[in-house]
Amino acid sequence: MAEYSSKLLEEAVNQLSRLPGIGRKTALRLCLHILKSENGEAQQLGEALIKLREEICYCDICHNISDGNTCKICLDLRRDPETICVVADIRDVMAIENTSQFRGRYHVLGGIISPIEGIGPGDLTIDSLLRRIESEKTRELIMALPATIEGDTTNYYIYKKISTLGILVTTIARGIAVGDDLEFADEITLGRSILNRMPFEGTIGQKK
Amino acid sequence: MAEYSSKLLEEAVNQLSRLPGIGRKTALRLCLHILKSENGEAQQLGEALIKLREEICYCDICHNISDGNTCKICLDLRRDPETICVVADIRDVMAIENTSQFRGRYHVLGGIISPIEGIGPGDLTIDSLLRRIESEKTRELIMALPATIEGDTTNYYIYKKISTLGILVTTIARGIAVGDDLEFADEITLGRSILNRMPFEGTIGQKK
Repeated sequence: MAEYSSKLLEEAVNQLSRLPGIGRKTALRLCLHILKSENGEAQQLGEALIKLREEICYCDICHNISDGNTCKICLDLRRDPETICVVADIRDVMAIENTSQFRGRYHVLGGIISPIEGIGPGDLTIDSLLRRIESEKTRELIMALPATIEGDTTNYYIYKKISTLGILVTTIARGIAVGDDLEFADEITLGRSILNRMPFEGTIGQKK
Repeated sequence: MAEYSSKLLEEAVNQLSRLPGIGRKTALRLCLHILKSENGEAQQLGEALIKLREEICYCDICHNISDGNTCKICLDLRRDPETICVVADIRDVMAIENTSQFRGRYHVLGGIISPIEGIGPGDLTIDSLLRRIESEKTRELIMALPATIEGDTTNYYIYKKISTLGILVTTIARGIAVGDDLEFADEITLGRSILNRMPFEGTIGQKK
């Protein structure tokens, strides 16, 4: 291991290299950049990271991150309150928001059921989702969880819990990505896209 | 551009993505990791970066980074004060220190002469090197600058400045790296390694 000529540098490299995907060489490169940066830039960066962790709130309703007790999406009255899109992670909210195709609300589970990683239903916001469904007159639940065994397990668990409530439960379409060649698609995806084929008229005029 | 559901998150992503090699997606991934991190970890990281920039010192003698006015290497009396290795960057000091093959002192120029980037001799610590040579009875100057036109220019500039002082000026050996196949070496390096061949006896017992 390299001996650093400064304890401050060593500490900064140690801290940065704890982040995922950042090794000691990258951390050192970032530190040297910070050393050469304008006065105040390091201060802004450091404070932004500290504030992020210390002051962040999670929305009481959908558990997305938020600056207050209720997030912007849940506060937006123009958004359909009867449709809830269930996602694993706040990154998924951003990804769906970027499409501008969804005008309902979200529910962030905070993960998916994974016995291997020791994540059970109690570690997720499923109870909060069930309470929300009861109080909000939800009409449709769109499941947008990862297409893995864990995702399917979580889908099924939630479906079982609400199957008696008469709510429409859907999942996002799996199929060949727009622009992809069929020959390079994996067999499971291609197979599903055949099984879940849809009437041609339904695709006319859809935004790509 | 993604709209973030929290100003704190947006600010942290903005700040992180100013670092070299870190785009907005990576910055977001790092922020989400920080959000899930143990209490206090973000504080440690942020403070380490702020302290690095605010409190770092540069050695008065060799301009390496240091925790005080003089760095550990310059303070180490066991190190040969008559041999100075001239490097462009503090990273080069670390690289050479890692080899454990050099027991002299360093001089960090802080860059190399580059008219294109607007870096002239006055922007580097060359004057400080010249004063140091006069006061320290330097015997040998080992030039370990990059093998580029800018590096050669800087070598030549320094060489001209001290050519009358009777100091031995050497440059680190350029040649085929230990373990490399000749067929994959670039022509300039291979050509230099033939021109600068050395007596076989001199290589016996050298640490690889």
